[in-house]
Amino acid sequence: MATGKLRMGMVGGGPGAFIGAVHRLCLAMDGQFELMAGAFSSDPAKSRQTGGELGLDPKRVHGSWQELLESEAKLPAGERIHAVSIVTPNHAHHGPAKLALEKGFHVVCDKPLTISVEEADELEQLVRKSGLQFCVTHNYTGHPMVREARNLVQSGQLGEIRKVYVEYLQGWLSDKLEATGQKQATWRTDPKRSGPCGAMGDIGTHAANLVEHVTGSRIDSLYAVLKTWVAGRPLDDDGMVLFKLKNGASGTLAASQVCVGRENGLMLRLFGTKGGLAWQQEHPNDLTVYWKDRAPELRRPGNGWVNDEAKTLQRVPPGHPEGYLEAFANLYRSFARAIRGEKDIPNAYPTVSDGLSGMRFLRACLKSSKENGWVAP
Amino acid sequence: MATGKLRMGMVGGGPGAFIGAVHRLCLAMDGQFELMAGAFSSDPAKSRQTGGELGLDPKRVHGSWQELLESEAKLPAGERIHAVSIVTPNHAHHGPAKLALEKGFHVVCDKPLTISVEEADELEQLVRKSGLQFCVTHNYTGHPMVREARNLVQSGQLGEIRKVYVEYLQGWLSDKLEATGQKQATWRTDPKRSGPCGAMGDIGTHAANLVEHVTGSRIDSLYAVLKTWVAGRPLDDDGMVLFKLKNGASGTLAASQVCVGRENGLMLRLFGTKGGLAWQQEHPNDLTVYWKDRAPELRRPGNGWVNDEAKTLQRVPPGHPEGYLEAFANLYRSFARAIRGEKDIPNAYPTVSDGLSGMRFLRACLKSSKENGWVAP
Amino acid sequence: MATGKLRMGMVGGGPGAFIGAVHRLCLAMDGQFELMAGAFSSDPAKSRQTGGELGLDPKRVHGSWQELLESEAKLPAGERIHAVSIVTPNHAHHGPAKLALEKGFHVVCDKPLTISVEEADELEQLVRKSGLQFCVTHNYTGHPMVREARNLVQSGQLGEIRKVYVEYLQGWLSDKLEATGQKQATWRTDPKRSGPCGAMGDIGTHAANLVEHVTGSRIDSLYAVLKTWVAGRPLDDDGMVLFKLKNGASGTLAASQVCVGRENGLMLRLFGTKGGLAWQQEHPNDLTVYWKDRAPELRRPGNGWVNDEAKTLQRVPPGHPEGYLEAFANLYRSFARAIRGEKDIPNAYPTVSDGLSGMRFLRACLKSSKENGWVAP
Amino acid sequence: MATGKLRMGMVGGGPGAFIGAVHRLCLAMDGQFELMAGAFSSDPAKSRQTGGELGLDPKRVHGSWQELLESEAKLPAGERIHAVSIVTPNHAHHGPAKLALEKGFHVVCDKPLTISVEEADELEQLVRKSGLQFCVTHNYTGHPMVREARNLVQSGQLGEIRKVYVEYLQGWLSDKLEATGQKQATWRTDPKRSGPCGAMGDIGTHAANLVEHVTGSRIDSLYAVLKTWVAGRPLDDDGMVLFKLKNGASGTLAASQVCVGRENGLMLRLFGTKGGLAWQQEHPNDLTVYWKDRAPELRRPGNGWVNDEAKTLQRVPPGHPEGYLEAFANLYRSFARAIRGEKDIPNAYPTVSDGLSGMRFLRACLKSSKENGWVAP
Repeated sequence: MATGKLRMGMVGGGPGAFIGAVHRLCLAMDGQFELMAGAFSSDPAKSRQTGGELGLDPKRVHGSWQELLESEAKLPAGERIHAVSIVTPNHAHHGPAKLALEKGFHVVCDKPLTISVEEADELEQLVRKSGLQFCVTHNYTGHPMVREARNLVQSGQLGEIRKVYVEYLQGWLSDKLEATGQKQATWRTDPKRSGPCGAMGDIGTHAANLVEHVTGSRIDSLYAVLKTWVAGRPLDDDGMVLFKLKNGASGTLAASQVCVGRENGLMLRLFGTKGGLAWQQEHPNDLTVYWKDRAPELRRPGNGWVNDEAKTLQRVPPGHPEGYLEAFANLYRSFARAIRGEKDIPNAYPTVSDGLSGMRFLRACLKSSKENGWVAP
Repeated sequence: MATGKLRMGMVGGGPGAFIGAVHRLCLAMDGQFELMAGAFSSDPAKSRQTGGELGLDPKRVHGSWQELLESEAKLPAGERIHAVSIVTPNHAHHGPAKLALEKGFHVVCDKPLTISVEEADELEQLVRKSGLQFCVTHNYTGHPMVREARNLVQSGQLGEIRKVYVEYLQGWLSDKLEATGQKQATWRTDPKRSGPCGAMGDIGTHAANLVEHVTGSRIDSLYAVLKTWVAGRPLDDDGMVLFKLKNGASGTLAASQVCVGRENGLMLRLFGTKGGLAWQQEHPNDLTVYWKDRAPELRRPGNGWVNDEAKTLQRVPPGHPEGYLEAFANLYRSFARAIRGEKDIPNAYPTVSDGLSGMRFLRACLKSSKENGWVAP
Repeated sequence: MATGKLRMGMVGGGPGAFIGAVHRLCLAMDGQFELMAGAFSSDPAKSRQTGGELGLDPKRVHGSWQELLESEAKLPAGERIHAVSIVTPNHAHHGPAKLALEKGFHVVCDKPLTISVEEADELEQLVRKSGLQFCVTHNYTGHPMVREARNLVQSGQLGEIRKVYVEYLQGWLSDKLEATGQKQATWRTDPKRSGPCGAMGDIGTHAANLVEHVTGSRIDSLYAVLKTWVAGRPLDDDGMVLFKLKNGASGTLAASQVCVGRENGLMLRLFGTKGGLAWQQEHPNDLTVYWKDRAPELRRPGNGWVNDEAKTLQRVPPGHPEGYLEAFANLYRSFARAIRGEKDIPNAYPTVSDGLSGMRFLRACLKSSKENGWVAP
Repeated sequence: MATGKLRMGMVGGGPGAFIGAVHRLCLAMDGQFELMAGAFSSDPAKSRQTGGELGLDPKRVHGSWQELLESEAKLPAGERIHAVSIVTPNHAHHGPAKLALEKGFHVVCDKPLTISVEEADELEQLVRKSGLQFCVTHNYTGHPMVREARNLVQSGQLGEIRKVYVEYLQGWLSDKLEATGQKQATWRTDPKRSGPCGAMGDIGTHAANLVEHVTGSRIDSLYAVLKTWVAGRPLDDDGMVLFKLKNGASGTLAASQVCVGRENGLMLRLFGTKGGLAWQQEHPNDLTVYWKDRAPELRRPGNGWVNDEAKTLQRVPPGHPEGYLEAFANLYRSFARAIRGEKDIPNAYPTVSDGLSGMRFLRACLKSSKENGWVAP
């Protein structure tokens, strides 16, 4: 069994990428992984730029994923990467994933897995044969309250599931944003990089995965209407689906990127013979649970009444939102800038004077409460 | 100016501590700091245990903060820590903070700053003389929407502030939890370690700090009623305060740890001559802004209409809650466990089969939408 | 033009009926109508019972709607009813509606209008010929914020509408409630009285009507899946529909009576090229409006910024929920009981002693504020 | 015991008044009262105008409350009013209330009861002696969920109450609205008509009453700070109060009319040794109940799990908000206008064509569901 930090390589995530930075932050969060190597861009100069910014050994930074994987495979077992994280656009998932598996590396890969079922099938078979680990980052399944939902359903507490309503509504592609050259919009609306689906591939797969994750049942059949609203866009930017699950439930799935004003409106609601539930990713700590014979409950992480799995997924005490950590880290980041001597740091952090003010506040509280009068701190 | 990662030491945060782990996670989040040394407990064995778990060089792990700071100060400049993070109970803030400043280390210190105004005054003077950075972790000020609130007030958009209502309501100390030996409850209700205030020191200072941070004005005078509800507890577990700010506004502050069922109910509302606002830490991405002459707005991070400072504090795109990162990191953590060969990993992550299922979903969507019929994935 | 109160007759609404009582309360609310006659049940004794409770002239209370309408038609113009309100199960709408129109009476009729398109067509033609008024009680269209939504859409402020999501989710028929003899469940699940549709007729028509009302566009085509979940129930208790509107928009409609725990979950969301909106009947005063280039707004009735039509539909000042009136009326009802000498009135109302307590509170506030000390009221 | 409708007289509520119209609507809602007489204004012409609009017998419409009460008292018992509803500004409560009691009439009176404790004391004694009913319209106590809250507290389910937080925040008097002549603002800020308190009398008494109603305990002592923010206004427009109840609980009360953007923000939260609750009048059907050992519940009216008293206060089935009735009544009002031949009725109601459209929708649903294809209605 591997001990110490696991060594990670990355494919994609060069300058201007969004999800690569998220992956790097999250792989480091628990001190389990250390990023050691990468092919951050198919442009070697850009790859080197990112590698340099991340302080990587230049010998382990490459201009192609082939080079990265070949080169790492030749390193001694105690040095080479354990796993690779693939954060490229969809069309560039299959190649590096396949080679990584062939070279014996575990794989983290962004969603949708590939751009065709055939490619995905091949990867699944490779994984099965190799015994390697392969994680697709359907990240919403990582929320404690999603696991609470899954537990409620799969333990039978909600009875037999009848109805499932899921949706993922965004508004950011309501106009032809790709015409401005915006990087995220450009590749997501380009069939060569995104594959044959637009909105349905980008966010509809998250919705479908969430249904399957929580219910533990696969989609059995579906009826879909895909649509492109923005003129000149070659892929769907909107879709609506009726579906039936293998467990007998039926439901609706809506995925749209033209719902003006909606940010990341992923919402799941489902109802069984004994109860139901509702969860929205924009407030991920709130899970409403409906019951046939008593008032609905609002379950939140970390309390005694959530299931054990949900508890293991939480890093902060009950009542602190997921997000508490980022706010906390913001102070450390500004503090680092101050130590480095940066001027005009945009984000003040609470200084010793603020701390002193707090102590004066407490002294005043004690005095006022004792003496029954107004006190200046 | 320091380049590369900044080296951090830690005082406190040994076995069983809660906030130490939060500090470690957050200092690492942006890759700005690396924890290199520590005095994690006044029990040398416990300190060594934590140091070992963190993979630190045993020579830089100590059984007292004096030893830690003396020893680090003797290291060459290129090796010794830049800063120390103090995460001990309140009574053990002043000593290490003072010595750290004297030795030339920057300081991060938990709140409340000390257990007396005199101690805090001394620290403030030391900071002023030394030119060192000193950050008190009033962590709620790190939220993007708190900075948006601050900007709205301090830019004058809400007019002259008249009323400020702030509260921090918790329920976890409704019973005599300290009698069970629960570590957090024990030191927080012990005057020797907590100082002369209980709830008001523990959470009331957060509320007071939030008011001062957002308004940019200090509390000018106050009238307080502190109260102990749980029999045999030597410190207040509840307080209510009327206050006036130097800017002329007045308001109420409530801090209580006996509000059964409330988790971390920090809420700020304020009203000026032109508008007002409301923010709750349990849903930190939502800021309601009231206006005299138009409908209230719901502002959320990352959108075009929030101010520049708030934008710099956000690590995820609009619509993804702060917390998105933790969910993402949960997948990486489970993935690491799987790679390490752990069995019965409690938290499944989405596998290649889930990815394949997604591709089948997309293929079915395309086929159904084109052929106008039900399709099995 | 008719002056004074309009005289109303009622068909249906006898003992045990729910919606009849609602109609009576609402027709009286603004002092425009007075109920003067009725055929409250096809059982003459029951009809007389209700008529007696309502204090009606026994000569104007009948055991059949034919008798009612024939008899009223023979009264002098200054005495006979102006209109009839039909609140029977669905199968008994067409008969009295048709005869009422033939006799020259205006009609209020519950939804769905009839049990077949043919019956409805006939009524529409009769209305057109007669010039009489005919109101179908799609009651949700009466909310001020629904009219605000309609105005936002039909004035073009939201641009061209692309997507419409509507749903009406209830849970009360999750089990075979009709087997218990519960009156509402019994007729609604009986094809003879409910017509060929169950849930879709009972609540799906409300959802469809809301879409057409707000968008001003009719449904052009649809794809539906109706389903019966509860064994032995002859009508659908669940349905999901994909639809396209004549204006080019598309969307989903879900109507279900097996969503355990949901009460009356009627929700409409729609999105155009410039903005969008969301409205839920369970909180009917809140309308969220999304915009492309600014933060979402929360519009509520009675404020300066809502449109004129919405203003005319509100009976209470801004901030008081619709419902304020019922709470107010509850006091009057208890007061009436007290005057009548009833004992053990379940619902206390605030007495003169409560009023005195309020005056003591105010006196204490004035004294405390002036003298700067604690005061007993 | 009185049978049939109870006859009501009214003092106040003439042209331009707001609360008079609310009282009339609510007294009529349940068919218990009929308004028969009034002194609607101290200007006889205005009183006659209102009486005429209400269709009252001119002989029972008067220009002074003295005249009204004297005159009614002389009528035979079977004709004279049973009760009088006093809806004048505060200074004009005591006079008519006292005379009404002396003449043997039951009384409904707006809040605050009088403008001094002495006046209120006198009324309380008169009520006690006379055995007459006297209702002060602290209307928020009429909500079903307020009674549910009261039941939870007074049955001991929440344990001993420790903390009570109540507030009533409005923004409508943020500017000198009275300078525009706005009628509501003018008398409320005039000590001659409003009495010695402004905001605290107008809305603070509602908050205080709600505390006493729900807890069943009177305020024992308080510490208040009243304040006038708007220059030139002779009464407080803002107040904050610390209070202790006779039952031992303590809390804060804030009442303000300068909180820009807030409409009628009456909110009560309280916490006992076993649980707590939160209620806001702007969403009066939602009661959050906190428990020590299980997840919070959301209780709403009409469900099996609310107490019997709350059930008796509800006129609509579960899930329909209070407010459902007003929306329903809006249709009847528009329908009445149409019958009367008014043109350009601002508020359309659903017509027979809408009903026909619904039937076409249902026919299409049935056909599509059976034939598995798209169908035009």
